[in-house]
Amino acid sequence: MKNTKLQAFIPLFYIVWSDSLLTEKGFFTLHEFIDSQDWLSAEEKEFLFSKITIANPPSRQDITDWRNKIEEIIQNRPEIKSVFEVVVALSGDDEIIQGLEIAFVKLENDLGILGEEAISNFKSKAQSHTVNSHTEASFDVNKITAILDGAQAPIINKVKSVISRPEFQYETSTDIGVYRQKVLDWCKILADENLGNMAYPKKYGGGENIADYFSIMETLSYHDLSLVIKFGVQFGLWGMSVQSLGTEKHYVKYLKDIGALKLPGCFAMTETHHGSNVKGLETTATYNHENQTFVIHTPHEKAQKEYIGNAALHGQMATVFAKLIIAGQDHGVNAFVVPLRDENGVVLKGITIGDCGHKMGLNGVDNGTIRFDNVVIPKENMLDRFASVNDKGEFESPIPSDNRRFFTMLGTLVGGRIGIPRSALAAAKSGLAIAIKYSDQRKQFGPENGEEVPILNYRMHQRRLLIPLAKTYAIHFALQYLTKRFINKTEAEMQEIEALAAGLKSYSTWNTTATLQECREACGGKGYLSENRIDALKNDTEIYTTFEGDNTVLMQLVAKNRLAEFRKAFGEMGSLGIINYVYENAKSAIAEKNPVVIRKTDDEHLLDSQFHLQAFQHREKTILASAAKRIKKLVDSGLDAYDAFNVVQHQMIDVAEAYLDSVVLEQFQIAIEAVKDEKSKAILTKLNQLFALSQIEINKAWYLEDGYMEAVKTKAIRKMVNQLCWDIRPDAVALVDAFAIPDSCLAAPIVVGEK
Amino acid sequence: MKNTKLQAFIPLFYIVWSDSLLTEKGFFTLHEFIDSQDWLSAEEKEFLFSKITIANPPSRQDITDWRNKIEEIIQNRPEIKSVFEVVVALSGDDEIIQGLEIAFVKLENDLGILGEEAISNFKSKAQSHTVNSHTEASFDVNKITAILDGAQAPIINKVKSVISRPEFQYETSTDIGVYRQKVLDWCKILADENLGNMAYPKKYGGGENIADYFSIMETLSYHDLSLVIKFGVQFGLWGMSVQSLGTEKHYVKYLKDIGALKLPGCFAMTETHHGSNVKGLETTATYNHENQTFVIHTPHEKAQKEYIGNAALHGQMATVFAKLIIAGQDHGVNAFVVPLRDENGVVLKGITIGDCGHKMGLNGVDNGTIRFDNVVIPKENMLDRFASVNDKGEFESPIPSDNRRFFTMLGTLVGGRIGIPRSALAAAKSGLAIAIKYSDQRKQFGPENGEEVPILNYRMHQRRLLIPLAKTYAIHFALQYLTKRFINKTEAEMQEIEALAAGLKSYSTWNTTATLQECREACGGKGYLSENRIDALKNDTEIYTTFEGDNTVLMQLVAKNRLAEFRKAFGEMGSLGIINYVYENAKSAIAEKNPVVIRKTDDEHLLDSQFHLQAFQHREKTILASAAKRIKKLVDSGLDAYDAFNVVQHQMIDVAEAYLDSVVLEQFQIAIEAVKDEKSKAILTKLNQLFALSQIEINKAWYLEDGYMEAVKTKAIRKMVNQLCWDIRPDAVALVDAFAIPDSCLAAPIVVGEK
Repeated sequence: MKNTKLQAFIPLFYIVWSDSLLTEKGFFTLHEFIDSQDWLSAEEKEFLFSKITIANPPSRQDITDWRNKIEEIIQNRPEIKSVFEVVVALSGDDEIIQGLEIAFVKLENDLGILGEEAISNFKSKAQSHTVNSHTEASFDVNKITAILDGAQAPIINKVKSVISRPEFQYETSTDIGVYRQKVLDWCKILADENLGNMAYPKKYGGGENIADYFSIMETLSYHDLSLVIKFGVQFGLWGMSVQSLGTEKHYVKYLKDIGALKLPGCFAMTETHHGSNVKGLETTATYNHENQTFVIHTPHEKAQKEYIGNAALHGQMATVFAKLIIAGQDHGVNAFVVPLRDENGVVLKGITIGDCGHKMGLNGVDNGTIRFDNVVIPKENMLDRFASVNDKGEFESPIPSDNRRFFTMLGTLVGGRIGIPRSALAAAKSGLAIAIKYSDQRKQFGPENGEEVPILNYRMHQRRLLIPLAKTYAIHFALQYLTKRFINKTEAEMQEIEALAAGLKSYSTWNTTATLQECREACGGKGYLSENRIDALKNDTEIYTTFEGDNTVLMQLVAKNRLAEFRKAFGEMGSLGIINYVYENAKSAIAEKNPVVIRKTDDEHLLDSQFHLQAFQHREKTILASAAKRIKKLVDSGLDAYDAFNVVQHQMIDVAEAYLDSVVLEQFQIAIEAVKDEKSKAILTKLNQLFALSQIEINKAWYLEDGYMEAVKTKAIRKMVNQLCWDIRPDAVALVDAFAIPDSCLAAPIVVGEK
Repeated sequence: MKNTKLQAFIPLFYIVWSDSLLTEKGFFTLHEFIDSQDWLSAEEKEFLFSKITIANPPSRQDITDWRNKIEEIIQNRPEIKSVFEVVVALSGDDEIIQGLEIAFVKLENDLGILGEEAISNFKSKAQSHTVNSHTEASFDVNKITAILDGAQAPIINKVKSVISRPEFQYETSTDIGVYRQKVLDWCKILADENLGNMAYPKKYGGGENIADYFSIMETLSYHDLSLVIKFGVQFGLWGMSVQSLGTEKHYVKYLKDIGALKLPGCFAMTETHHGSNVKGLETTATYNHENQTFVIHTPHEKAQKEYIGNAALHGQMATVFAKLIIAGQDHGVNAFVVPLRDENGVVLKGITIGDCGHKMGLNGVDNGTIRFDNVVIPKENMLDRFASVNDKGEFESPIPSDNRRFFTMLGTLVGGRIGIPRSALAAAKSGLAIAIKYSDQRKQFGPENGEEVPILNYRMHQRRLLIPLAKTYAIHFALQYLTKRFINKTEAEMQEIEALAAGLKSYSTWNTTATLQECREACGGKGYLSENRIDALKNDTEIYTTFEGDNTVLMQLVAKNRLAEFRKAFGEMGSLGIINYVYENAKSAIAEKNPVVIRKTDDEHLLDSQFHLQAFQHREKTILASAAKRIKKLVDSGLDAYDAFNVVQHQMIDVAEAYLDSVVLEQFQIAIEAVKDEKSKAILTKLNQLFALSQIEINKAWYLEDGYMEAVKTKAIRKMVNQLCWDIRPDAVALVDAFAIPDSCLAAPIVVGEK
């Protein structure tokens, strides 16, 4: 092509021959376009036609030459962003060509060329060399740590300093007796440091600081998780049940000793036959007005209390949940303080303790069973904040419905559903720190005759670790938000916050299970050795998805809460309400769903936080409306609500997930908005983009079914996820360093050196 | 509607008002249709119009009446399959209406009504009552067991009877010393029963029956998995390395003692710094022609052998993989028999043993590290089937390239990649048996004021357990197929079989990890107690995804093998080859991709095995071509192959998965074809449908992106997966009973009663 202006066609030729599958139609379109350009002579047209004859493809050399020319232009003019700009440049800035922008862009569209992508392929070439990628932080690690810790930094640092002391060296004995004792000893140290009573009122010796309490739980979780659970059972479940369900007389009597670990206790709710369905508990508390006592009794073996932490060995008392019976009438489940052992640890008469024995994890916690054989307790042992027996021996409660009273009681215990997801978060961070640091050092395979390469340079390895890293960062901010909402809650917000806590408990703990699974596999055989701690992290947190509420059950609660909100907003869940909602949602989605947007794949759009949030929220709203519609249809067809909810159970989980995804994304975005340091902001923004796009990728079938995106866009998102992983990789080690986990806690020889 | 023929419109009114989201266009279409029917009078038209006025919706009672009428018709005439048949019936079989089939069907299509689905919604109503579902086998359990066991039934029964003996009671000590000794004792019993030497030639005391050997591995896996791995290390890895890599002189000397467990040994391949990349091993075997010896040496700490089973305590010898050096020249990795301990277990001079210590699982296996400090062994200790040192001290091999020779050696060891996935399969079966039986008994929640319901009746629970059950059955038959291919292999098939084994090893072990995760969560707190065995199953198999080849690395091997086959079939991987392939594939997909089929959602089609297989194969071929195209493009753009493969690593995993999905589905289908008993065939067919559709559901984003299915179809598939789960639920317990796992092995108190 000696004629310079003809070089304008090079990018089209190159793309049509190399970039995508050849279709006859594409060649025909290009042929027609050339034919219609009256500024070309007949010979010039013939020459151009000769380059796009399917029967006579260009040589390899031709294609290489074209590529080199395009590459040269793009490298010399980094400001170039579109194919047309390359066209103009190659034509030697020919004036005729410059006037043809509209026609060329139309041609690109007709050919289905993704201009920006084609250009960026040229630009990113140099970056795709596997061997060249290495750790190189783009930001100040301490600044990210400061953002993560926020106002809780002082207490976090205090806890870290305590658990870094020599006496907190990990217990390696496989003897559960030894381990349980060690965990109890550790708890005593924490109590002595005034960490256990942090949430209790100052009046009863506490720190009166709930925010600090949750930060203590989270930070302790960098250390042994049996310790965290034992700590949570004692100071959270046992102590907080007294505080939340009891009254002044109980506070005075118990709180100080609980906070000092002088009075170890249990939270005895779950029974063998009733876990998720706590309303069905069968233990009874029968009131005897004659002598003002309650008789606590286990009616049959399967009604025994089970999995109760502190029960097998150390607990001296328990908050026992039991059906209150007065004069033969059942007043529903209430809570009572029941002594289990004397001060010397001798089990009291009428109490039978069993040991849950060896568990998959958390073997430093003495879980046990408790049976009551007509155990008599004084009337004052009823935790009577929400219900009591009056002097006449009658049941009294400010809340008229037994059902509502019980759920109000449970609502006050929602703190556990904040502590657990935050503990899970810390475990995920530990796992990621170990796996990412190891993957940065571990080398395996390499280019032909070249050196071996860190396994973190491999794309699959990046996907497996960096997507969970992004999600873990996202969850961090969501849990900060949940904690703040909880601390500043008003009565009217309670239902929403309970649902949010239930949801984020599931969201965070499932993330931890999945993340630690990837971490284990990513560390290969080293990940299987107990010394590298993924064993303990994985097995200890395994039960997090079950306790404090089975995740699947909780997700249905969340979905039901969303449906209730939906009903509130649109009146009875009749057709019209749903139609209105759907219509409103559709209206707001019109701009997002136009034919250009559903196919839009340029980087700027794909990385745009507004696009992410709109996509998440559209999904959230549409799934919610669709589930509501389906349930209505099923109920209309004659099913009762219970059956209808079962039929759509799978969809209910989607409702909850979509809602939680939205919350997590939004809170991550809001947190980033507030960051002042530019470099910190930049890396957090990248993580947020990776979180958003990888979640969209997971749900891409939904977006395609809904018509919110077309295939060209979902494919571009997949590529962008890969690219973001690649871009974040040099920062990955710094990002886990920012968690600032003490070396003595991380402990894994594969990253902190041999013991 | 007193006028009977007007009742013909009831189904349309009902569907349009209740079934789907109202769109103005739909009402307009229906309005137009009515208007165009010249057999209707003006008054009749007005009456009908009045029923479809958006501003004036029908009452709840109207809709209920319509529904009842439709329901009555469908229940009275079970042969009815289409909406039009309902239309005719409601019109009192009016003759005019009967003549309007084409017009009505066109209308249905214009309205987007899924006729069959609408009908089946009416039919299945009675089945959707959560409380009514319960265990009720539709088939003879023993017949399915016989199909699963096939010709290996006798050896399977023998193994089951051995491991059911009292001396095989599980070890519950957490002391790894005690546990390791117990596992060794068990292995000795198995050796005495002539189970260990089953694969060795009769000439050397063996059973010469490889099929039986694999069945032994699989059946033993119902018992303790440390036992299986110890057994596999001794008789498989150690013994088979001698048999596969050695020659007559080694057989005579070692095989009988190995088979009798008189000579415990190790397979010392992996090093700290080289696991997946075994070509990079650094241990050296330096030949000394003077005294006809090799010097085995560990050049630095990270070149020590690691994770070696039998090394920490019991191994007396090891097959050591080391780079052979002759006169300063490196001849690549070869295998040598090296003594480690004397008969009394005393470690020999020059050998340093380390203990891998406590692991996440398999703590009955004594994994260790081995270092060699210039250990001298006689020349005859080289396992010299594929390479040797001749009398002149020169290297000799029938295979000219070091690289090819090494991979030929590795190829002979592929048996391990059959034993492991089969062991994993058995572990998945055990987990499913425990979780499904428990979920059938465990009750929680229920309808308002009703009894509680078995948790297996909940739809999410069904999805979580029955989809893995279907997949596990599918994998069973695929592994049977793999075993047969391996046993009857020809030289020409070896590469394919190696890839298949690598692939199915990953496929099966990942399935086990995922399945046991679901099982644990499905059993709640009970699943966390060690006594219920999911703990051990899960933690023991956790490393299966890593050893015998890291799954992700193996999947890339599989993908590379597929690409190589692809190149072979279409010549050099040039554009034309790819285009031809894509063209051929597209041609064969034309029938499947026509506008009717991509939207087809009737039950018959969705459950059709031909549809399943075509969908799987289309995906397999298309993904393969797409990966090939992408790699070519990257290489053309200047990347070297190593970098190009890294860029597409994620896609490579897809290539392998799609291939394996196809193989597994096809083999399951072939196996079912051969089943004679009708009831067995029926239930296996249902499992196969569930496997096929649930895999399509997992990959539905791909099918939507590809245009192979439209949203209406992928949504119908999701519903059908739910329906199949529901339909299989009454057979679920029988389906796990058919695994015929001895009660003493299953052991979990939650299903076989308290200990």
